[in-house]
Amino acid sequence: MKMSPQEIIAHKRDGLALNREEVQQFVDGVVSGSFQDYQSSALLMAIVLKGMTPEETGWLTEAMMRSGRIVELPEISRPKVDKHSTGGVGDKVSLILAPLAAACGLCVPMMSGRGLGHTGGTLDKLEAIPGFSTQLSDAHYRQQLQSIHQAMIGQSADMVPADRKLYALRDVTATVESIPLICASILSKKLAEGIDALVLDVKFGRGAFMPTEAAGRELAEALVAISASMGKPTTALLTRMDEPLGHMIGNSLEVIEAIKCLLGEGPEDLMEVTYALCAEMLVLGGLHSTQADAMVALKTAIASGAALDGFRKLVEAQGGDVSVVDDLSRLPLTARTKDFALPNEQAGYISGLDARSFGEAACLLGAGRINTDSVIDPAVGLELLKKVGDRLELGEAIVRIHYQDTDTLEAAEARLQNAITLTDKAPTATPIIVDRICHT
Amino acid sequence: MKMSPQEIIAHKRDGLALNREEVQQFVDGVVSGSFQDYQSSALLMAIVLKGMTPEETGWLTEAMMRSGRIVELPEISRPKVDKHSTGGVGDKVSLILAPLAAACGLCVPMMSGRGLGHTGGTLDKLEAIPGFSTQLSDAHYRQQLQSIHQAMIGQSADMVPADRKLYALRDVTATVESIPLICASILSKKLAEGIDALVLDVKFGRGAFMPTEAAGRELAEALVAISASMGKPTTALLTRMDEPLGHMIGNSLEVIEAIKCLLGEGPEDLMEVTYALCAEMLVLGGLHSTQADAMVALKTAIASGAALDGFRKLVEAQGGDVSVVDDLSRLPLTARTKDFALPNEQAGYISGLDARSFGEAACLLGAGRINTDSVIDPAVGLELLKKVGDRLELGEAIVRIHYQDTDTLEAAEARLQNAITLTDKAPTATPIIVDRICHT
Repeated sequence: MKMSPQEIIAHKRDGLALNREEVQQFVDGVVSGSFQDYQSSALLMAIVLKGMTPEETGWLTEAMMRSGRIVELPEISRPKVDKHSTGGVGDKVSLILAPLAAACGLCVPMMSGRGLGHTGGTLDKLEAIPGFSTQLSDAHYRQQLQSIHQAMIGQSADMVPADRKLYALRDVTATVESIPLICASILSKKLAEGIDALVLDVKFGRGAFMPTEAAGRELAEALVAISASMGKPTTALLTRMDEPLGHMIGNSLEVIEAIKCLLGEGPEDLMEVTYALCAEMLVLGGLHSTQADAMVALKTAIASGAALDGFRKLVEAQGGDVSVVDDLSRLPLTARTKDFALPNEQAGYISGLDARSFGEAACLLGAGRINTDSVIDPAVGLELLKKVGDRLELGEAIVRIHYQDTDTLEAAEARLQNAITLTDKAPTATPIIVDRICHT
Repeated sequence: MKMSPQEIIAHKRDGLALNREEVQQFVDGVVSGSFQDYQSSALLMAIVLKGMTPEETGWLTEAMMRSGRIVELPEISRPKVDKHSTGGVGDKVSLILAPLAAACGLCVPMMSGRGLGHTGGTLDKLEAIPGFSTQLSDAHYRQQLQSIHQAMIGQSADMVPADRKLYALRDVTATVESIPLICASILSKKLAEGIDALVLDVKFGRGAFMPTEAAGRELAEALVAISASMGKPTTALLTRMDEPLGHMIGNSLEVIEAIKCLLGEGPEDLMEVTYALCAEMLVLGGLHSTQADAMVALKTAIASGAALDGFRKLVEAQGGDVSVVDDLSRLPLTARTKDFALPNEQAGYISGLDARSFGEAACLLGAGRINTDSVIDPAVGLELLKKVGDRLELGEAIVRIHYQDTDTLEAAEARLQNAITLTDKAPTATPIIVDRICHT
């Protein structure tokens, strides 16, 4: 029997679990309009405050996933595996991982989002490459997946419309912070891609959406459980996001760093996360039986140049200027840079580089979106000359700021003012990968 | 500093108390539209689930009250006191109380609502009297209050617009059930009438909005505290609403019963509640120092015919046919009635007459609104031939059903089927007035 929106809202308000029909009616109603926005937002707030069982979250994910077109890729014979990150500062892992995984035998049909706020978006980074298109026709996309086994595009408007509507509503009604709603939003989009398995990078810390390890773990466990209940083998890595990942923040700068990684010259923290995620993908895709075996394959693909070659193919297939790979100066870069040092000359060991402040400073320079209308400047950004644990001598520069004008430079410098902490003794190193969560 | 709606919503979501500016910004935003409906409903749900302090509730009440025109009545020299009931089945107290209080020296500037669902509305009852108008011009209203010291009208659209908008939204988003929101809705409307003091009838039980004594008490205490904090002396009576009040349910039928009460022929339970509420009004208005003194004055006003005369004046002043008072058959009544007895002949003492079922049965006959578009039939209704505690002999009728057609008759009979309970022994009488709550 069909219930009124009020009745469904009242059930969740009173802390009851919704049944499958109620969840379906909500998602159908969001798309058809029979659930008014003001009714959806009341239900969303009730979900934020009363929660959802894993069963309810699974139904919500499935109903959202089926609210629009679902991609199926029966013509692809390779295992189709994707990776999703909950977002961090300097996180350019996807740019390295897709060509690397493709070079090792997987198909990576990656649909990504754009950046908002202090974290960057994969599509924005790729678009720093002159000519690179992230909007491909369905035919082009499928042909590319068959020929080069990877593609990186934005999700088309006919996919997962329920998530698009609900996400816009959550953003303006303070109903973003909810594990079940976050799970359903992430997984409905990823599972509509037609993948066989999924690897998740769930970040926590100062620069991540989830502030604490406990919150990150809760989200990771929920994501893995829901995804597995929908028949998709899924593994999550719980990773620390207190300082920026790697050295580069900003769109061109992150493409440069990704290319260096593919050349075998990547920074340790970034490569550690990339290898670990990629190894999980190879294992879930059935290409290797252990992470250690997968790791050997990955390192070989970097050393042989096969991964870099994959990146060239990706850029070429999506209309980008391939010559940037061999001449990084062809990427848009600012004419001006300034090396930033601590104002009162201090020395010591760097104990903290606050990722959120670095992300916000890059955003203020023009690298990210302050709101959805913001235009991104691919050239600007921050280049870390030091990482946590490094020794800082008196007056030594910590960050190179790539800027266009003094106004944004000053705004970024002000944001960095309190972003750096020093200690007298070298801080103890903390592992970047904290745990690995898989369905048991 | 002005905050975004999201920030205000997030504060309540996180269980914080809003400050006065946040509450004011919400109410202003509801009226101006800068708070979108979907943002208001998310905040309303957060208030339902996280509550509001008495201070916040007071600010909300005041901001809502001031969202439109506030009536001031400086030309009235008498104490201006009103009564509000949270609604019950057969509750025609206002029709008796306003002329009675006016006959005893008060001014009663009563603005009432319409009925929805199983409870009736005062305006609907009065409109059963041919010609009676509940929409008066401001000049007419004020002149009437000066000449006959009472008026019973609907609140005009320019008063308390914030409540009108929020109530409509609460109704369709399952956010009605919240003590702070109920308090603010009731008191913002009542305190915009320009009264000096207020008496509340907070009902609980099967036929009331508040199901339990504890819930009713909580609402009564909150209402009295908020109203007092706004400088209006307020007393609440906590009254039982398990069986219908009096014998009549339906618009013409309730006018008939009210006139009988004014003639001194009212049923015991109805008169007890009416006298008690009215005595509180006289004491709060400063006309008597004790309830006992006030009670003497009230009984005298009934016995002398002064209260009935006041009712005649009310009907005449608002354009109604005064001859109904002396000839009750001039009220619209149905041609057909049917006496309802229990289907399997049973005997015993009546231990329960479920007020909600009786209210719903009357509604099905056409006496009330199933939705806001429903047209009310003043003629139909239910007449209780027995009350709780009465002896029922085999086959004896319990209710006389005043109906128009067999479809609605059958629907009403079906609803009454399980509404009546019998016991072998006479049930112990329970007091109808359970407590009196005043500001300490």
